[in-house]
Amino acid sequence: VGVPKQRSLYKSLKNAAKLDAASPSTTQFLVDLIKHSLGELEKYEHQSLIAVNVPGKDYFAFLDPTKGKISRPVSVSLFDLDLCADRLDDFSSGAYRALPRASLEKLLYTMAMSFCCANDMRTSGDKKTPATFFECFVANIFSRELGVLPTTKAEVLNLDMQATLPTDYLFNLGPGKAKIHLPIKISTRERVVQVWAHQRVLDGVYGVGRFRGVLVVITETNLVKGGKVTEVCLPDQWKVYQMFISQLKRIYYLDLPMKYANLAKTYPFLQVKSFAEFFREKDKLISATVE
Amino acid sequence: VGVPKQRSLYKSLKNAAKLDAASPSTTQFLVDLIKHSLGELEKYEHQSLIAVNVPGKDYFAFLDPTKGKISRPVSVSLFDLDLCADRLDDFSSGAYRALPRASLEKLLYTMAMSFCCANDMRTSGDKKTPATFFECFVANIFSRELGVLPTTKAEVLNLDMQATLPTDYLFNLGPGKAKIHLPIKISTRERVVQVWAHQRVLDGVYGVGRFRGVLVVITETNLVKGGKVTEVCLPDQWKVYQMFISQLKRIYYLDLPMKYANLAKTYPFLQVKSFAEFFREKDKLISATVE
Repeated sequence: VGVPKQRSLYKSLKNAAKLDAASPSTTQFLVDLIKHSLGELEKYEHQSLIAVNVPGKDYFAFLDPTKGKISRPVSVSLFDLDLCADRLDDFSSGAYRALPRASLEKLLYTMAMSFCCANDMRTSGDKKTPATFFECFVANIFSRELGVLPTTKAEVLNLDMQATLPTDYLFNLGPGKAKIHLPIKISTRERVVQVWAHQRVLDGVYGVGRFRGVLVVITETNLVKGGKVTEVCLPDQWKVYQMFISQLKRIYYLDLPMKYANLAKTYPFLQVKSFAEFFREKDKLISATVE
Repeated sequence: VGVPKQRSLYKSLKNAAKLDAASPSTTQFLVDLIKHSLGELEKYEHQSLIAVNVPGKDYFAFLDPTKGKISRPVSVSLFDLDLCADRLDDFSSGAYRALPRASLEKLLYTMAMSFCCANDMRTSGDKKTPATFFECFVANIFSRELGVLPTTKAEVLNLDMQATLPTDYLFNLGPGKAKIHLPIKISTRERVVQVWAHQRVLDGVYGVGRFRGVLVVITETNLVKGGKVTEVCLPDQWKVYQMFISQLKRIYYLDLPMKYANLAKTYPFLQVKSFAEFFREKDKLISATVE
Protein backbone atom coordinates (compact mmCIF):
# COMPACT_ATOMS: atom_id res chain seq x y z
CA VAL A 1 0.00 0.00 0.00
CA GLY A 2 2.84 2.39 0.95
CA VAL A 3 4.68 2.44 -2.35
CA PRO A 4 1.74 3.06 -4.73
CA LYS A 5 0.39 5.77 -2.44
CA GLN A 6 3.78 7.49 -2.38
CA ARG A 7 4.11 7.27 -6.19
CA SER A 8 0.67 8.71 -6.78
CA LEU A 9 1.23 11.57 -4.30
CA TYR A 10 4.57 12.32 -5.95
CA LYS A 11 2.97 12.48 -9.40
CA SER A 12 0.20 14.71 -8.07
CA LEU A 13 2.80 17.02 -6.53
CA LYS A 14 4.72 17.29 -9.81
CA ASN A 15 1.55 18.10 -11.77
CA ALA A 16 0.26 20.59 -9.20
CA ALA A 17 3.67 22.32 -8.96
CA LYS A 18 3.86 22.62 -12.75
CA LEU A 19 0.51 24.44 -12.79
CA ASP A 20 1.22 26.65 -9.77
CA ALA A 21 4.24 26.17 -7.50
CA ALA A 22 2.57 28.15 -4.70
CA SER A 23 -1.01 26.85 -4.85
CA PRO A 24 -2.67 25.39 -1.73
CA SER A 25 -2.91 22.02 -3.51
CA THR A 26 0.85 22.01 -4.25
CA THR A 27 1.47 22.84 -0.59
CA GLN A 28 -0.95 20.10 0.49
CA PHE A 29 0.68 17.42 -1.72
CA LEU A 30 4.06 18.39 -0.25
CA VAL A 31 2.70 18.04 3.29
CA ASP A 32 0.96 14.74 2.48
CA LEU A 33 4.11 13.30 0.91
CA ILE A 34 6.21 14.31 3.89
CA LYS A 35 3.64 12.95 6.35
CA HIS A 36 3.70 9.69 4.46
CA SER A 37 7.50 9.64 4.47
CA LEU A 38 7.67 10.29 8.22
CA GLY A 39 5.35 7.31 8.75
CA GLU A 40 7.55 5.08 6.61
CA LEU A 41 10.73 6.14 8.39
CA GLU A 42 9.32 5.20 11.82
CA LYS A 43 9.63 1.55 10.76
CA TYR A 44 13.41 1.61 10.32
CA GLU A 45 16.33 1.25 12.70
CA HIS A 46 18.88 4.04 13.11
CA GLN A 47 22.51 3.23 12.46
CA SER A 48 25.13 5.59 13.87
CA LEU A 49 27.68 6.83 11.39
CA ILE A 50 31.24 8.02 11.94
CA ALA A 51 31.66 11.64 10.87
CA VAL A 52 35.14 12.20 9.43
CA ASN A 53 36.36 15.79 9.20
CA VAL A 54 32.91 17.18 10.01
CA PRO A 55 33.59 18.91 13.34
CA GLY A 56 30.65 19.26 15.70
CA LYS A 57 28.19 17.25 13.66
CA ASP A 58 26.81 13.73 14.18
CA TYR A 59 25.04 11.62 11.58
CA PHE A 60 22.96 8.45 11.42
CA ALA A 61 21.30 6.52 8.63
CA PHE A 62 18.00 4.66 8.41
CA LEU A 63 18.64 0.94 8.12
CA ASP A 64 16.51 -1.95 6.87
CA PRO A 65 18.64 -5.01 7.74
CA THR A 66 16.24 -7.49 6.12
CA LYS A 67 16.52 -5.77 2.72
CA GLY A 68 20.11 -4.60 3.27
CA LYS A 69 19.04 -1.01 2.57
CA ILE A 70 20.63 2.07 4.10
CA SER A 71 19.61 5.72 3.62
CA ARG A 72 21.76 8.76 3.01
CA PRO A 73 23.36 10.32 6.14
CA VAL A 74 21.00 12.29 8.38
CA SER A 75 22.08 14.98 10.86
CA VAL A 76 21.29 13.94 14.44
CA SER A 77 20.80 17.53 15.61
CA LEU A 78 18.71 18.71 12.64
CA PHE A 79 16.40 15.74 12.04
CA ASP A 80 13.39 15.96 14.34
CA LEU A 81 10.56 13.67 13.31
CA ASP A 82 8.16 14.70 16.09
CA LEU A 83 8.67 18.44 15.64
CA CYS A 84 8.17 18.02 11.89
CA ALA A 85 4.93 16.04 12.30
CA ASP A 86 3.65 18.67 14.78
CA ARG A 87 4.50 21.65 12.55
CA LEU A 88 3.36 20.49 9.10
CA ASP A 89 0.08 22.38 9.55
CA ASP A 90 2.10 25.52 10.29
CA PHE A 91 3.90 24.96 7.00
CA SER A 92 0.54 24.86 5.19
CA SER A 93 -0.71 28.00 6.93
CA GLY A 94 2.57 29.89 6.63
CA ALA A 95 2.86 30.25 10.43
CA TYR A 96 6.09 28.23 10.33
CA ARG A 97 8.08 31.27 9.22
CA ALA A 98 7.71 32.76 12.71
CA LEU A 99 9.20 29.71 14.48
CA PRO A 100 12.36 30.23 16.55
CA ARG A 101 15.47 29.88 14.38
CA ALA A 102 16.50 26.43 15.72
CA SER A 103 13.00 24.97 15.24
CA LEU A 104 12.71 26.45 11.74
CA GLU A 105 16.03 24.87 10.76
CA LYS A 106 14.91 21.49 12.08
CA LEU A 107 11.53 21.71 10.37
CA LEU A 108 12.96 22.61 6.95
CA TYR A 109 15.70 19.99 7.16
CA THR A 110 13.38 17.23 8.34
CA MET A 111 10.75 18.02 5.69
CA ALA A 112 13.33 17.76 2.91
CA MET A 113 15.28 14.80 4.25
CA SER A 114 12.32 12.65 5.28
CA PHE A 115 11.17 12.34 1.67
CA CYS A 116 14.72 11.73 0.40
CA CYS A 117 15.43 9.03 3.00
CA ALA A 118 12.07 7.27 2.55
CA ASN A 119 12.83 7.21 -1.19
CA ASP A 120 16.33 5.79 -0.50
CA MET A 121 14.75 2.87 1.39
CA ARG A 122 12.42 2.01 -1.51
CA THR A 123 14.74 2.42 -4.51
CA SER A 124 18.35 1.94 -5.63
CA GLY A 125 20.43 4.83 -6.87
CA ASP A 126 17.40 7.01 -7.74
CA LYS A 127 18.67 10.60 -7.77
CA LYS A 128 15.98 12.19 -9.93
CA THR A 129 12.95 11.73 -7.63
CA PRO A 130 14.52 13.44 -4.57
CA ALA A 131 15.91 16.22 -6.81
CA THR A 132 12.47 16.92 -8.33
CA PHE A 133 10.78 16.77 -4.93
CA PHE A 134 13.28 19.22 -3.46
CA GLU A 135 12.83 21.60 -6.39
CA CYS A 136 9.05 21.58 -5.79
CA PHE A 137 9.60 22.12 -2.06
CA VAL A 138 11.94 25.11 -2.39
CA ALA A 139 10.06 26.65 -5.34
CA ASN A 140 6.86 26.43 -3.24
CA ILE A 141 8.55 28.25 -0.35
CA PHE A 142 10.04 30.98 -2.54
CA SER A 143 6.85 31.49 -4.56
CA ARG A 144 4.79 31.87 -1.39
CA GLU A 145 7.30 34.20 0.26
CA LEU A 146 7.89 36.33 -2.85
CA GLY A 147 4.25 36.38 -3.96
CA VAL A 148 5.00 35.58 -7.63
CA LEU A 149 5.31 32.39 -9.67
CA PRO A 150 8.64 31.45 -11.31
CA THR A 151 9.35 30.66 -14.94
CA THR A 152 11.97 28.18 -16.13
CA LYS A 153 13.02 29.77 -19.38
CA ALA A 154 14.63 33.03 -20.39
CA GLU A 155 14.40 34.81 -23.72
CA VAL A 156 17.73 35.55 -25.32
CA LEU A 157 17.97 38.62 -27.50
CA ASN A 158 19.86 37.78 -30.65
CA LEU A 159 19.67 39.76 -33.82
CA ASP A 160 19.47 36.69 -36.04
CA MET A 161 17.40 34.16 -34.14
CA GLN A 162 14.67 33.70 -31.61
CA ALA A 163 16.01 31.60 -28.77
CA THR A 164 14.86 30.75 -25.30
CA LEU A 165 17.23 29.25 -22.81
CA PRO A 166 15.95 26.63 -20.36
CA THR A 167 16.95 27.87 -16.92
CA ASP A 168 16.55 27.21 -13.24
CA TYR A 169 13.67 29.04 -11.57
CA LEU A 170 13.48 32.77 -12.35
CA PHE A 171 11.33 35.15 -10.31
CA ASN A 172 10.39 38.52 -11.76
CA LEU A 173 9.15 40.64 -8.85
CA GLY A 174 8.25 43.57 -11.05
CA PRO A 175 9.44 47.18 -11.16
CA GLY A 176 11.35 48.47 -8.16
CA LYS A 177 12.36 44.98 -6.99
CA ALA A 178 15.26 42.68 -7.73
CA LYS A 179 14.78 39.59 -9.86
CA ILE A 180 15.83 36.19 -8.51
CA HIS A 181 17.69 33.32 -10.24
CA LEU A 182 17.07 30.25 -8.07
CA PRO A 183 18.98 27.02 -8.75
CA ILE A 184 18.08 24.18 -6.33
CA LYS A 185 20.30 21.15 -5.61
CA ILE A 186 20.32 18.17 -3.22
CA SER A 187 24.11 18.60 -3.10
CA THR A 188 26.51 20.35 -5.45
CA ARG A 189 29.40 18.01 -6.22
CA GLU A 190 31.30 18.57 -9.49
CA ARG A 191 28.34 20.07 -11.34
CA VAL A 192 28.16 23.27 -9.31
CA VAL A 193 30.07 25.37 -11.84
CA GLN A 194 26.86 25.24 -13.90
CA VAL A 195 25.22 27.56 -11.39
CA TRP A 196 27.83 30.30 -11.86
CA ALA A 197 27.79 29.70 -15.64
CA HIS A 198 24.01 30.13 -15.86
CA GLN A 199 24.27 33.27 -13.72
CA ARG A 200 26.90 34.54 -16.18
CA VAL A 201 24.51 33.97 -19.10
CA LEU A 202 21.76 35.89 -17.31
CA ASP A 203 24.25 38.70 -16.53
CA GLY A 204 25.19 38.80 -20.22
CA VAL A 205 21.63 38.76 -21.50
CA TYR A 206 19.95 41.09 -18.99
CA GLY A 207 22.83 43.10 -17.54
CA VAL A 208 25.16 42.26 -14.65
CA GLY A 209 23.30 41.92 -11.35
CA ARG A 210 19.81 42.22 -12.89
CA PHE A 211 19.07 38.70 -11.63
CA ARG A 212 20.35 37.86 -8.16
CA GLY A 213 21.66 34.32 -8.00
CA VAL A 214 20.39 32.39 -4.96
CA LEU A 215 21.41 28.73 -4.71
CA VAL A 216 19.61 26.41 -2.25
CA VAL A 217 21.24 23.11 -1.26
CA ILE A 218 20.38 20.46 1.33
CA THR A 219 23.82 19.16 2.32
CA GLU A 220 27.31 18.17 1.13
CA THR A 221 27.55 14.96 3.15
CA ASN A 222 28.67 11.77 1.48
CA LEU A 223 28.39 8.23 2.86
CA VAL A 224 31.59 6.30 2.23
CA LYS A 225 32.66 2.75 3.03
CA GLY A 226 32.66 1.56 6.61
CA GLY A 227 29.71 3.69 7.76
CA LYS A 228 31.72 6.90 7.48
CA VAL A 229 30.36 10.33 6.59
CA THR A 230 32.41 13.09 4.99
CA GLU A 231 31.48 16.59 3.85
CA VAL A 232 32.72 17.23 0.30
CA CYS A 233 33.58 20.94 0.11
CA LEU A 234 35.76 22.82 -2.37
CA PRO A 235 35.80 26.38 -0.95
CA ASP A 236 38.86 27.52 -2.95
CA GLN A 237 37.18 26.50 -6.23
CA TRP A 238 34.03 28.38 -5.20
CA LYS A 239 36.12 31.49 -4.57
CA VAL A 240 37.56 31.20 -8.07
CA TYR A 241 34.09 30.80 -9.62
CA GLN A 242 32.79 33.79 -7.64
CA MET A 243 35.83 35.86 -8.71
CA PHE A 244 35.95 34.94 -12.38
CA ILE A 245 32.62 33.58 -13.67
CA SER A 246 29.84 35.53 -11.95
CA GLN A 247 28.72 36.65 -8.51
CA LEU A 248 26.08 34.67 -6.65
CA LYS A 249 24.17 36.71 -4.06
CA ARG A 250 23.40 33.91 -1.58
CA ILE A 251 23.91 30.20 -1.08
CA TYR A 252 21.52 28.67 1.47
CA TYR A 253 21.99 25.25 3.05
CA LEU A 254 19.62 23.15 5.13
CA ASP A 255 22.72 21.51 6.68
CA LEU A 256 25.34 24.25 6.43
CA PRO A 257 28.98 23.13 5.97
CA MET A 258 31.30 25.23 8.11
CA LYS A 259 33.91 25.40 5.33
CA TYR A 260 31.40 27.18 3.11
CA ALA A 261 29.96 29.39 5.88
CA ASN A 262 33.51 30.68 6.38
CA LEU A 263 33.60 31.96 2.78
CA ALA A 264 31.67 35.05 3.93
CA LYS A 265 34.68 36.18 5.99
CA THR A 266 37.31 36.67 3.26
CA TYR A 267 37.40 38.00 -0.29
CA PRO A 268 35.33 37.54 -2.44
CA PHE A 269 32.92 37.35 0.55
CA LEU A 270 30.57 34.68 -0.84
CA GLN A 271 27.53 34.65 1.47
CA VAL A 272 26.76 31.05 2.42
CA LYS A 273 24.11 30.76 5.16
CA SER A 274 21.51 28.54 6.78
CA PHE A 275 18.26 28.49 4.75
CA ALA A 276 16.34 29.67 7.84
CA GLU A 277 18.12 33.00 7.35
CA PHE A 278 16.19 33.54 4.09
CA PHE A 279 12.97 34.20 6.02
CA ARG A 280 14.68 36.90 8.10
CA GLU A 281 16.47 38.68 5.26
CA LYS A 282 14.16 38.19 2.28
CA ASP A 283 13.09 41.83 2.15
CA LYS A 284 16.70 42.91 1.90
CA LEU A 285 17.33 40.22 -0.72
CA ILE A 286 14.60 41.45 -3.05
CA SER A 287 15.14 45.16 -2.50
CA ALA A 288 16.21 46.72 -5.80
CA THR A 289 18.89 48.78 -4.06
CA VAL A 290 22.33 47.23 -4.04
CA GLU A 291 24.07 47.64 -0.71
CA VAL B 1 42.14 -14.46 -20.22
CA GLY B 2 40.66 -11.46 -22.09
CA VAL B 3 39.35 -9.49 -19.13
CA PRO B 4 42.43 -9.59 -16.84
CA LYS B 5 44.70 -8.73 -19.80
CA GLN B 6 42.50 -5.76 -20.70
CA ARG B 7 42.40 -4.53 -17.08
CA SER B 8 46.16 -4.75 -16.69
CA LEU B 9 46.80 -2.97 -20.01
CA TYR B 10 44.34 -0.25 -19.00
CA LYS B 11 46.11 0.26 -15.67
CA SER B 12 49.49 0.38 -17.41
CA LEU B 13 48.14 2.98 -19.84
CA LYS B 14 46.85 5.16 -17.00
CA ASN B 15 50.17 5.01 -15.16
CA ALA B 16 52.26 5.62 -18.28
CA ALA B 17 50.03 8.54 -19.36
CA LYS B 18 50.32 10.12 -15.92
CA LEU B 19 54.12 10.07 -16.20
CA ASP B 20 54.29 11.24 -19.82
CA ALA B 21 51.21 11.50 -22.06
CA ALA B 22 53.38 11.42 -25.20
CA SER B 23 55.94 8.73 -24.32
CA PRO B 24 56.49 5.74 -26.63
CA SER B 25 55.27 3.46 -23.84
CA THR B 26 52.01 5.42 -23.45
CA THR B 27 51.54 5.19 -27.22
CA GLN B 28 52.31 1.45 -27.13
CA PHE B 29 49.82 0.74 -24.32
CA LEU B 30 47.16 2.63 -26.30
CA VAL B 31 47.90 0.54 -29.39
CA ASP B 32 47.97 -2.72 -27.42
CA LEU B 33 44.65 -1.92 -25.72
CA ILE B 34 43.02 -1.09 -29.04
CA LYS B 35 44.46 -4.20 -30.70
CA HIS B 36 43.04 -6.25 -27.84
CA SER B 37 39.66 -4.51 -28.17
CA LEU B 38 39.51 -5.14 -31.93
CA GLY B 39 40.12 -8.85 -31.26
CA GLU B 40 37.33 -8.94 -28.69
CA LEU B 41 34.87 -7.18 -30.99
CA GLU B 42 35.39 -9.73 -33.79
CA LYS B 43 33.50 -12.24 -31.62
CA TYR B 44 30.23 -10.30 -31.55
CA GLU B 45 27.29 -10.01 -33.92
CA HIS B 46 26.32 -6.66 -35.44
CA GLN B 47 22.79 -5.43 -34.88
CA SER B 48 21.47 -2.75 -37.22
CA LEU B 49 19.99 0.28 -35.50
CA ILE B 50 17.38 2.73 -36.72
CA ALA B 51 18.78 6.25 -36.94
CA VAL B 52 16.09 8.80 -36.04
CA ASN B 53 16.70 12.41 -37.12
CA VAL B 54 20.33 11.67 -38.05
CA PRO B 55 20.27 12.33 -41.82
CA GLY B 56 22.83 10.45 -43.91
CA LYS B 57 24.22 8.33 -41.08
CA ASP B 58 23.76 4.63 -40.32
CA TYR B 59 24.56 2.93 -37.02
CA PHE B 60 24.92 -0.59 -35.66
CA ALA B 61 25.72 -2.04 -32.25
CA PHE B 62 27.78 -5.01 -31.15
CA LEU B 63 25.50 -7.70 -29.72
CA ASP B 64 26.11 -10.65 -27.42
CA PRO B 65 22.74 -12.45 -27.41
CA THR B 66 23.84 -15.07 -24.87
CA LYS B 67 24.66 -12.43 -22.26
CA GLY B 68 22.01 -9.97 -23.47
CA LYS B 69 24.68 -7.29 -23.90
CA ILE B 70 24.60 -4.52 -26.48
CA SER B 71 27.23 -1.83 -27.14
CA ARG B 72 26.81 1.87 -27.73
CA PRO B 73 25.86 2.87 -31.33
CA VAL B 74 28.68 2.65 -33.88
CA SER B 75 28.78 4.55 -37.19
CA VAL B 76 28.70 2.15 -40.16
CA SER B 77 30.70 4.48 -42.40
CA LEU B 78 33.34 5.46 -39.81
CA PHE B 79 34.02 2.14 -38.06
CA ASP B 80 36.63 0.16 -40.04
CA LEU B 81 38.12 -2.70 -38.06
CA ASP B 82 40.50 -3.89 -40.82
CA LEU B 83 41.83 -0.42 -41.66
CA CYS B 84 42.37 0.22 -37.96
CA ALA B 85 44.27 -3.04 -37.42
CA ASP B 86 46.42 -2.27 -40.50
CA ARG B 87 47.24 1.29 -39.46
CA LEU B 88 47.99 0.95 -35.73
CA ASP B 89 51.72 0.83 -36.49
CA ASP B 90 51.34 4.11 -38.40
CA PHE B 91 49.76 5.56 -35.27
CA SER B 92 52.82 4.52 -33.25
CA SER B 93 55.26 5.94 -35.80
CA GLY B 94 53.28 9.11 -36.44
CA ALA B 95 52.87 8.30 -40.15
CA TYR B 96 49.08 8.17 -39.67
CA ARG B 97 48.84 11.96 -39.77
CA ALA B 98 49.58 11.87 -43.53
CA LEU B 99 46.69 9.47 -44.31
CA PRO B 100 43.99 10.68 -46.72
CA ARG B 101 41.26 12.56 -44.82
CA ALA B 102 38.65 9.76 -45.04
CA SER B 103 41.08 7.09 -43.80
CA LEU B 104 42.31 9.32 -40.97
CA GLU B 105 38.72 9.91 -39.82
CA LYS B 106 38.03 6.16 -39.85
CA LEU B 107 41.26 5.33 -38.03
CA LEU B 108 40.70 7.88 -35.24
CA TYR B 109 37.03 6.92 -34.81
CA THR B 110 37.70 3.18 -34.81
CA MET B 111 40.60 3.49 -32.35
CA ALA B 112 38.43 5.39 -29.87
CA MET B 113 35.23 3.41 -30.34
CA SER B 114 36.76 -0.08 -30.34
CA PHE B 115 37.92 0.32 -26.74
CA CYS B 116 34.62 1.90 -25.66
CA CYS B 117 32.52 -0.86 -27.28
CA ALA B 118 34.69 -3.70 -25.99
CA ASN B 119 34.29 -2.18 -22.52
CA ASP B 120 30.50 -1.93 -23.00
CA MET B 121 30.37 -5.69 -23.69
CA ARG B 122 32.25 -6.51 -20.47
CA THR B 123 30.66 -4.11 -17.99
CA SER B 124 27.35 -2.48 -17.09
CA GLY B 125 26.97 1.29 -17.05
CA ASP B 126 30.71 1.95 -16.67
CA LYS B 127 31.27 5.51 -17.93
CA LYS B 128 34.56 6.26 -16.19
CA THR B 129 36.82 3.73 -17.94
CA PRO B 130 35.99 4.85 -21.52
CA ALA B 131 36.24 8.51 -20.46
CA THR B 132 39.71 8.00 -18.95
CA PHE B 133 40.86 5.96 -21.96
CA PHE B 134 39.67 8.66 -24.37
CA GLU B 135 41.42 11.36 -22.34
CA CYS B 136 44.70 9.40 -22.57
CA PHE B 137 44.17 8.87 -26.32
CA VAL B 138 43.51 12.53 -27.19
CA ALA B 139 46.12 13.88 -24.75
CA ASN B 140 48.67 11.53 -26.38
CA ILE B 141 47.81 12.85 -29.85
CA PHE B 142 47.92 16.52 -28.81
CA SER B 143 51.14 16.12 -26.80
CA ARG B 144 52.88 14.43 -29.73
CA GLU B 145 51.61 16.97 -32.26
CA LEU B 146 52.35 20.02 -30.09
CA GLY B 147 55.67 18.73 -28.75
CA VAL B 148 54.93 19.63 -25.11
CA LEU B 149 53.35 17.82 -22.18
CA PRO B 150 50.14 19.13 -20.61
CA THR B 151 49.42 20.01 -17.00
CA THR B 152 46.06 19.59 -15.30
CA LYS B 153 46.14 22.45 -12.86
CA ALA B 154 46.33 26.22 -13.09
CA GLU B 155 47.62 28.67 -10.54
CA VAL B 156 45.17 31.36 -9.57
CA LEU B 157 46.58 34.71 -8.52
CA ASN B 158 44.81 35.96 -5.46
CA LEU B 159 46.18 38.52 -3.10
CA ASP B 160 45.09 36.63 0.02
CA MET B 161 45.55 32.97 -0.76
CA GLN B 162 47.52 30.48 -2.76
CA ALA B 163 45.12 28.45 -4.87
CA THR B 164 45.45 26.07 -7.76
CA LEU B 165 42.46 25.13 -9.84
CA PRO B 166 42.16 21.58 -11.14
CA THR B 167 41.58 21.91 -14.87
CA ASP B 168 41.32 19.98 -18.09
CA TYR B 169 44.59 19.58 -20.00
CA LEU B 170 46.54 22.81 -20.46
CA PHE B 171 49.38 23.11 -22.99
CA ASN B 172 51.90 25.92 -22.64
CA LEU B 173 53.73 26.12 -25.96
CA GLY B 174 56.08 28.85 -24.77
CA PRO B 175 56.72 32.41 -25.93
CA GLY B 176 55.38 33.39 -29.36
CA LYS B 177 52.78 30.61 -29.42
CA ALA B 178 49.22 30.29 -28.23
CA LYS B 179 48.36 28.21 -25.16
CA ILE B 180 45.75 25.47 -25.42
CA HIS B 181 42.91 24.53 -22.99
CA LEU B 182 41.84 21.02 -23.97
CA PRO B 183 38.72 19.46 -22.43
CA ILE B 184 37.99 15.92 -23.70
CA LYS B 185 34.58 14.22 -23.57
CA ILE B 186 32.98 11.00 -24.84
CA SER B 187 29.83 13.07 -25.43
CA THR B 188 28.72 16.40 -24.01
CA ARG B 189 25.11 16.11 -22.77
CA GLU B 190 23.97 18.53 -20.06
CA ARG B 191 27.41 18.98 -18.53
CA VAL B 192 28.93 20.85 -21.47
CA VAL B 193 28.43 24.31 -19.95
CA GLN B 194 31.37 23.37 -17.69
CA VAL B 195 33.69 23.69 -20.67
CA TRP B 196 32.70 27.31 -21.37
CA ALA B 197 32.77 28.05 -17.61
CA HIS B 198 36.32 26.71 -17.21
CA GLN B 199 37.38 28.71 -20.29
CA ARG B 200 35.86 31.77 -18.62
CA VAL B 201 37.94 31.17 -15.48
CA LEU B 202 41.12 30.87 -17.56
CA ASP B 203 40.16 34.08 -19.42
CA GLY B 204 39.68 35.80 -16.07
CA VAL B 205 42.90 34.54 -14.54
CA TYR B 206 45.26 34.86 -17.53
CA GLY B 207 43.53 37.36 -19.80
CA VAL B 208 40.86 36.82 -22.45
CA GLY B 209 42.05 34.56 -25.25
CA ARG B 210 45.40 33.70 -23.60
CA PHE B 211 44.32 30.05 -23.57
CA ARG B 212 42.52 28.82 -26.67
CA GLY B 213 39.70 26.46 -25.77
CA VAL B 214 39.67 23.28 -27.88
CA LEU B 215 37.04 20.66 -27.00
CA VAL B 216 37.37 17.12 -28.40
CA VAL B 217 34.30 14.84 -28.38
CA ILE B 218 33.61 11.41 -29.88
CA THR B 219 29.90 11.61 -30.68
CA GLU B 220 26.45 12.81 -29.54
CA THR B 221 24.58 9.61 -30.42
CA ASN B 222 22.24 8.07 -27.90
CA LEU B 223 20.74 4.56 -28.02
CA VAL B 224 17.06 4.68 -27.07
CA LYS B 225 14.41 2.00 -26.73
CA GLY B 226 13.55 -0.16 -29.73
CA GLY B 227 17.05 -0.16 -31.25
CA LYS B 228 16.81 3.49 -32.22
CA VAL B 229 19.68 5.99 -32.37
CA THR B 230 19.29 9.73 -31.95
CA GLU B 231 21.80 12.55 -31.94
CA VAL B 232 21.31 14.83 -28.92
CA CYS B 233 22.28 18.35 -30.02
CA LEU B 234 21.44 21.74 -28.50
CA PRO B 235 22.95 24.21 -31.00
CA ASP B 236 20.95 27.23 -29.76
CA GLN B 237 22.22 26.68 -26.22
CA TRP B 238 25.79 26.43 -27.52
CA LYS B 239 25.34 29.75 -29.31
CA VAL B 240 24.23 31.34 -26.05
CA TYR B 241 27.23 29.91 -24.16
CA GLN B 242 29.59 31.11 -26.91
CA MET B 243 27.97 34.57 -26.84
CA PHE B 244 27.75 35.09 -23.09
CA ILE B 245 30.16 32.85 -21.15
CA SER B 246 33.38 32.56 -23.16
CA GLN B 247 34.60 31.84 -26.68
CA LEU B 248 35.85 28.36 -27.54
CA LYS B 249 38.26 28.28 -30.48
CA ARG B 250 37.45 24.82 -31.83
CA ILE B 251 35.23 21.85 -31.12
CA TYR B 252 36.42 18.65 -32.82
CA TYR B 253 34.27 15.53 -33.21
CA LEU B 254 35.22 12.01 -34.28
CA ASP B 255 31.59 11.60 -35.46
CA LEU B 256 30.58 15.15 -36.36
CA PRO B 257 26.88 16.07 -35.85
CA MET B 258 25.65 18.18 -38.78
CA LYS B 259 23.65 20.45 -36.44
CA TYR B 260 26.87 21.47 -34.72
CA ALA B 261 28.95 21.70 -37.93
CA ASN B 262 26.38 24.27 -39.12
CA LEU B 263 27.18 26.53 -36.16
CA ALA B 264 30.24 27.78 -38.09
CA LYS B 265 27.94 29.45 -40.66
CA THR B 266 26.08 31.96 -38.49
CA TYR B 267 26.91 34.31 -35.60
CA PRO B 268 28.69 33.65 -33.23
CA PHE B 269 30.48 31.38 -35.76
CA LEU B 270 31.41 28.55 -33.39
CA GLN B 271 33.90 26.36 -35.30
CA VAL B 272 32.83 22.71 -34.94
CA LYS B 273 34.80 20.34 -37.18
CA SER B 274 35.94 16.77 -37.77
CA PHE B 275 38.93 15.90 -35.55
CA ALA B 276 40.93 14.94 -38.67
CA GLU B 277 40.95 18.67 -39.48
CA PHE B 278 43.15 19.31 -36.42
CA PHE B 279 46.14 17.72 -38.17
CA ARG B 280 45.71 20.05 -41.16
CA GLU B 281 45.21 23.28 -39.22
CA LYS B 282 47.24 22.78 -36.05
CA ASP B 283 49.92 25.32 -37.05
CA LYS B 284 47.24 27.97 -37.48
CA LEU B 285 45.64 26.91 -34.19
CA ILE B 286 48.84 27.41 -32.15
CA SER B 287 50.04 30.54 -33.94
CA ALA B 288 50.10 33.42 -31.46
CA THR B 289 48.56 35.78 -34.01
CA VAL B 290 44.81 36.11 -33.81
CA GLU B 291 43.18 36.18 -37.26
